[in-house]
Amino acid sequence: MILTVDIGNTRIKAAVFEGNNALENFVFEKNELEKKIEKILKKFPDCSDLVVASVGSIEKQAFLTFENRLKVHFFTHEDVFPFHNKYATPKTLGIDRMILAGGATLQFPKQNRLVIDAGTCITYDFIDENDNYLGGAISPGLRLRYESLHNFTARLPLLTLEAPDNYVGNSTPQAIHSGVVNGFVYEIDGFIDEYRKQFSNFIIILTGGDAEFLAKRLKNTIFANSNFLLESLSQTYQYKIDND
Amino acid sequence: MILTVDIGNTRIKAAVFEGNNALENFVFEKNELEKKIEKILKKFPDCSDLVVASVGSIEKQAFLTFENRLKVHFFTHEDVFPFHNKYATPKTLGIDRMILAGGATLQFPKQNRLVIDAGTCITYDFIDENDNYLGGAISPGLRLRYESLHNFTARLPLLTLEAPDNYVGNSTPQAIHSGVVNGFVYEIDGFIDEYRKQFSNFIIILTGGDAEFLAKRLKNTIFANSNFLLESLSQTYQYKIDND
Repeated sequence: MILTVDIGNTRIKAAVFEGNNALENFVFEKNELEKKIEKILKKFPDCSDLVVASVGSIEKQAFLTFENRLKVHFFTHEDVFPFHNKYATPKTLGIDRMILAGGATLQFPKQNRLVIDAGTCITYDFIDENDNYLGGAISPGLRLRYESLHNFTARLPLLTLEAPDNYVGNSTPQAIHSGVVNGFVYEIDGFIDEYRKQFSNFIIILTGGDAEFLAKRLKNTIFANSNFLLESLSQTYQYKIDND
Repeated sequence: MILTVDIGNTRIKAAVFEGNNALENFVFEKNELEKKIEKILKKFPDCSDLVVASVGSIEKQAFLTFENRLKVHFFTHEDVFPFHNKYATPKTLGIDRMILAGGATLQFPKQNRLVIDAGTCITYDFIDENDNYLGGAISPGLRLRYESLHNFTARLPLLTLEAPDNYVGNSTPQAIHSGVVNGFVYEIDGFIDEYRKQFSNFIIILTGGDAEFLAKRLKNTIFANSNFLLESLSQTYQYKIDND
């Protein structure tokens, strides 16, 4: 049994896996890290491995306390991954993006793969059918767009995510929802269209906190799985053990 | 001669008009307001009117000092505008958007008009061929997107606007440029496509600080004029005088 932990920019997500099956998922805040992991390990005492991917501000030291009880692995750029990394700046490639690319390579072999992770940021990562990781794109996620409209202007309110009534927003809140949500959807479909122009034999995986909200709004057909990062973490870890 | 002043969320833009001709343009910071306007009036002593549109934090009082020398008009929602305002929340419709809609109505009569202003925020404003202002959308501008990526994540750098090499960014800076710039362009083209599906007899006006950078990147044909807001301010003011 493996406990996987994904430390993002905003929250921490975790799941216990038995083989490829997620037994239970957890979401918590950064200041609850130790307490929550203790609780999970009490509920799942058969966990033998704790596997972490962190792009947030939490470092490996935070997990030292668990090392006497189970094997702790904190993913870094030094690990073996199942793809050829063609990124020009491999050391600044976020570990979350490497894990997503690892999972996509293992779960969907021998095809062109675009992984879209809609969280704090939205990241696009492309692995071609020869398992070359080529890079992608990063832009602000839905919540960041709402927040920056409020924070950097004198008069716009802070709104929370809501589906717009129409692309022509007929009030200030509706105009913001249309700009943020429709703009985001147009962006994602625009990127997908661009990849489709150049590549065939293609799968698109959509994950992250906003995956479910977005899936039904995109014109392109995608494979939506909000648990894809944690699944990828478990699978890439298994690959690492088998190939180290 | 009219001095027009546009107080945005970030900077102040101004221009002196003689009829419909802009004689000179100025850009300055908010803390330089009084000093810069004094300088402009010294250079153009024939200015008889000072016309202001402000969405920033500067109020009418800041211009009181000029009232003994020339006619000062600070646009508000109470003014007459050349369109029928169908917005459900007219009092929260930004004055900049009302001025843009006014200018579009006057400059391009009897057609469907979409005004896109790419500044701190990007605003979309639609006026139909019967001069009904229907609303639009608001989302973060290019600079806000770069800033929020840096401010809300632990490890992403703060970059300044640059054209991406490719839609597949093969380094962290290139991935950010692709996400922000390509994402922005896909968003704008997405909105334009949506309007085009529903409306014909259509003109699209692109303005704002990023208009020139964007114009050549859009797949849709647009009318780009980075001076459109100040032109609209001068024209809407003239309309107001003629119709008050």
